[in-house]
Amino acid sequence: MNKQPCRAWLPFLAEDVPPQCDAPVKVAEFELKTGCAALGVSAPELRLDHAMGDGYAVAVEDGKTVITGGDAGALYGAYAWLMAMAVGEAAPEGEQNPFYGLRMLNAWDNADGTIERGYSGRSLWFEGGRLSWDGARLRQLARMLASVGLNVLCVNNVNVKGEAAQLIEDELPELARLAAVFRPFGVRLMVSIDFSRPLVHGVGTADPLDEGVRRWWQERAEAVWRAIPDLAGFLVKADSEHRPGPFTYGRSHADGANMLARAIAPHGGILVWRAFVYNCQQDWRDQKTDRPMAAYETYAPLDGQFDDNVILQVKHGPFDFQVREPVSPTLYAMPNTRLAMEVQLAQEYTGHQIDLYAMNPLWRELADELPPGGVAAVAAVGNLGRDDNYTGHPFAAVNLYGFGRYAWNPFVEPENVIRRWARLTYRLPDTQEDALVHLLLSSREIYEKYTAPLGLCWMVRPGLHYGPNPSGYEYDAWGTYHRADRNGVGIDRTSEGTGYAAQYPPRERERYEALETCPDRLKLFFHRLPYDYRMSDGRTLIQRIYDDHFEGCAEAERMAETLRTLDLPEPERSEAFRRMELQLANAREWRDVINTFFHRLSGVGDEKGRKIYD
Amino acid sequence: MNKQPCRAWLPFLAEDVPPQCDAPVKVAEFELKTGCAALGVSAPELRLDHAMGDGYAVAVEDGKTVITGGDAGALYGAYAWLMAMAVGEAAPEGEQNPFYGLRMLNAWDNADGTIERGYSGRSLWFEGGRLSWDGARLRQLARMLASVGLNVLCVNNVNVKGEAAQLIEDELPELARLAAVFRPFGVRLMVSIDFSRPLVHGVGTADPLDEGVRRWWQERAEAVWRAIPDLAGFLVKADSEHRPGPFTYGRSHADGANMLARAIAPHGGILVWRAFVYNCQQDWRDQKTDRPMAAYETYAPLDGQFDDNVILQVKHGPFDFQVREPVSPTLYAMPNTRLAMEVQLAQEYTGHQIDLYAMNPLWRELADELPPGGVAAVAAVGNLGRDDNYTGHPFAAVNLYGFGRYAWNPFVEPENVIRRWARLTYRLPDTQEDALVHLLLSSREIYEKYTAPLGLCWMVRPGLHYGPNPSGYEYDAWGTYHRADRNGVGIDRTSEGTGYAAQYPPRERERYEALETCPDRLKLFFHRLPYDYRMSDGRTLIQRIYDDHFEGCAEAERMAETLRTLDLPEPERSEAFRRMELQLANAREWRDVINTFFHRLSGVGDEKGRKIYD
Repeated sequence: MNKQPCRAWLPFLAEDVPPQCDAPVKVAEFELKTGCAALGVSAPELRLDHAMGDGYAVAVEDGKTVITGGDAGALYGAYAWLMAMAVGEAAPEGEQNPFYGLRMLNAWDNADGTIERGYSGRSLWFEGGRLSWDGARLRQLARMLASVGLNVLCVNNVNVKGEAAQLIEDELPELARLAAVFRPFGVRLMVSIDFSRPLVHGVGTADPLDEGVRRWWQERAEAVWRAIPDLAGFLVKADSEHRPGPFTYGRSHADGANMLARAIAPHGGILVWRAFVYNCQQDWRDQKTDRPMAAYETYAPLDGQFDDNVILQVKHGPFDFQVREPVSPTLYAMPNTRLAMEVQLAQEYTGHQIDLYAMNPLWRELADELPPGGVAAVAAVGNLGRDDNYTGHPFAAVNLYGFGRYAWNPFVEPENVIRRWARLTYRLPDTQEDALVHLLLSSREIYEKYTAPLGLCWMVRPGLHYGPNPSGYEYDAWGTYHRADRNGVGIDRTSEGTGYAAQYPPRERERYEALETCPDRLKLFFHRLPYDYRMSDGRTLIQRIYDDHFEGCAEAERMAETLRTLDLPEPERSEAFRRMELQLANAREWRDVINTFFHRLSGVGDEKGRKIYD
Repeated sequence: MNKQPCRAWLPFLAEDVPPQCDAPVKVAEFELKTGCAALGVSAPELRLDHAMGDGYAVAVEDGKTVITGGDAGALYGAYAWLMAMAVGEAAPEGEQNPFYGLRMLNAWDNADGTIERGYSGRSLWFEGGRLSWDGARLRQLARMLASVGLNVLCVNNVNVKGEAAQLIEDELPELARLAAVFRPFGVRLMVSIDFSRPLVHGVGTADPLDEGVRRWWQERAEAVWRAIPDLAGFLVKADSEHRPGPFTYGRSHADGANMLARAIAPHGGILVWRAFVYNCQQDWRDQKTDRPMAAYETYAPLDGQFDDNVILQVKHGPFDFQVREPVSPTLYAMPNTRLAMEVQLAQEYTGHQIDLYAMNPLWRELADELPPGGVAAVAAVGNLGRDDNYTGHPFAAVNLYGFGRYAWNPFVEPENVIRRWARLTYRLPDTQEDALVHLLLSSREIYEKYTAPLGLCWMVRPGLHYGPNPSGYEYDAWGTYHRADRNGVGIDRTSEGTGYAAQYPPRERERYEALETCPDRLKLFFHRLPYDYRMSDGRTLIQRIYDDHFEGCAEAERMAETLRTLDLPEPERSEAFRRMELQLANAREWRDVINTFFHRLSGVGDEKGRKIYD
């Protein structure tokens, strides 16, 4: 007999949802029944109101709790109420509706079972070129997604490789079976497709304006939606990092996206088009080209040209999920386009699910920066895999949980999210819970302090993206340079420099361009500064770099001490301890490498006389 | 019908040696018959004199040429005479004997068909985990090896992976069939073995002093030599780069090597033990540990402790086939040990068989530096693969040819070797031949000038080992640092520094330690120097770095012009042109990256005002 799947933040839902629960209302009823029994509370009444969609309301009528909601909404309400009961709080009052209608998870799973930037083991649903899964584990995962309101799962890597192209062809029957696993949890599937696919089928071109290409996609869409009538849509990475796309045929990305969007519109499908286009074969000598400017340059002129069922998915920063980036200017620039903001739960640049890095503080900053109504949907690159706990580090589950909470309400307080996750997951004594919450809440700032400084980005080991290599990308083709020399460091992205800052609306532009108002954390993203530049608190730039690195590492060491005080269950405790040792080694390596790198360049010693290696 | 295998430098031997020629004398007779017919000369008489071994003599008796030699010697004599005829020269007079008795090629082929550091396609004799080959191609290759007197071929990678361990187990019958392909050409096989193999077979330990381990290897050796009575021996990489070895059991490398040597001695086997041991998990902060010192420290104290049938195989330099290294001090330090010097035909750090890099000038320098009688054998990591021309770049064949010539006589003039190869391979007009010879003869110096400067080493892309990355290894665990800062660069390896220079005999030590006598080309290998240090010609170090890089790149451009003047046959011409374009791009990249790297550090401009990027 298989051991029971990990329950993550839902330990009180100890029974598997049986496959017979084939609709959200049935899942909701099952969860309420077994959950209330486990929690020792009486079950509320569940009422369906289809018009409420994803929304729900919890009310007390004649002393009896009533949960009313749409199809998925009733299920969300059930989970919300159960989780409130589990932590001994009242359920939220009034009607609850999600801020974003599409709350998407993008899995970067490959058909061969590997996961691009996956740090939690192999794929949960691919192996050996085919879809293949453990039903109990997937239903547990679907429950977790539903419990925080995520409603779309794109099942395969945006880099469509090998047999993944078969998902909308020979593998359709299996994909339909997979959709049936998630459907009762209100989670619809999405598929990443290969823009050039008609070429494989003898169409002779993939030109989006070609009639044969259009027809091929129309026919394909008919077959796909015949098999899976509620498929959410297609996700496309085109003309990016060697992926094929409309540029091959001299067409715009609106041409490419709209052609596909029209093929799937009759079926209610959404076409998600990733705006991750830049020159990945840049000459490092070229100081005119500035990679962060690429997405805006490609897409802003197309604002208003995309069909209604196109969503342009834009990474939250202009680079690629670096530890500190400003909000992408593209997110301000397209008021007449449906935009999704993309974040990354997979800790590609943020510690590989070894180092702690809780993301809600980052996302809350984004929510505060984004123009009201500017973003219509959110998507997160997943952090899931076949590891027992699904997320590698047991605490990395906070980011999956937290992303659902963020997608429902981007202004939710990060501390509340983290505390709720901690309380649901571990029943720790109050002081220990406080310690864990503080540890997670501060984890991002600590990671930021011991890695690449002040918005500089990319001082990471090439390819691997874990650990320091200050000049690993410096003479490469990826457009990711710091140009540090013996006098200073950074790229001038103001109007005196590359002009990147001018892509922002006036308020943001002025804030970033003026040294006095540009936040210290982003100083080296927007400006080239000499080492003796005085930061806003009067410290020199070089001293600030040293201070951050010594402090960040010392704070990581204090996190390790805190961790040791927590009465976590096994195996989470041992796993968290083991990873913390690795994090400490990583933090020390970053501290020393970055300090030495800048010391060798600047020749300036640490004012406090701490050890910097020659 | 398959197309005829490439004949490399033996175009006049246009007929395949038939499998029926099952002994060297039969091959010799076949080659003389068909070769003389092709060349339009009358065939000499072949006489066997077993006592002559690998030696031979060509004499004219009564107007008739007579070639007398031992078994392999007669074959070598036949090839030598044929090649002399082919270029219209007289055969060498008097008895010819090889300087080194063992003239070995080490293939780094893996059982899965890949080749570690292979730049000529996949393996010629492995595929899918098994031995598998095209007989005609292998006999052509064996003919090439025999034509330059190479007599041992180690068939598998020193990193024994996957099914390669089966070569001395289940795959023995196939290995015996492979040995039969090479035997008629005087080439004996060798096999790389896994020191820990007894563990897999339930012995419970691989401790070389354990009786069970000894017995296991004795029995294995009996089975191996029963199948292949003339197997040359075993090759072992132990305790190196995560390979298992005697250190695991607290035993010395003499213990390890002798145990194996005794197992195979009754069968006439030789045990080749690689002396490539160093700490590949060094902390970059540690300035005491100096990787080039490792081999000497491990092996010099063991001098005299190895059995007679052990050969300790030492890389020519103390690092790992860098573009410029001093001779390994270990090669001076073990007069009571049979040493083999290892060189690398595979252009791992020297241009991947894209950039031109003819090696005889390097080897001749080594010959002049080595203590007389200090080295008993030579081995070369191979540059062969399944490409039509066997060596990727058509000109890379000069290194296979040249290695055979070097192994026969290390003091042979590089220019003569290169000219002979060129004349045999291409019948070019004299001025074109002169141009090709000059191009190859200067190729190493040009490559050296545009890559890592003055013995600094390792400024190469990690892992790939092609193209520049000045600090790619700087903060890593491989012991390969330059420690460049704003004031200077290099590691002091004199007695004031790490003490590496003290591993040499007094004459060499003094030469390297004194700045006045240390050759400029090795200055940064032995010394840490400020950028304004005056080199022997009065230029500053920084100006020398700039000059070398501008000049090296300009010289590569002149090589490209020269190449275009040569009337080479196709497809060699197109292939050489194509690779030269890549070499030029590589040279420019190296020039600009290295110049910029040092310019950013030093702040010193080029005296001649040439373009250095910021």
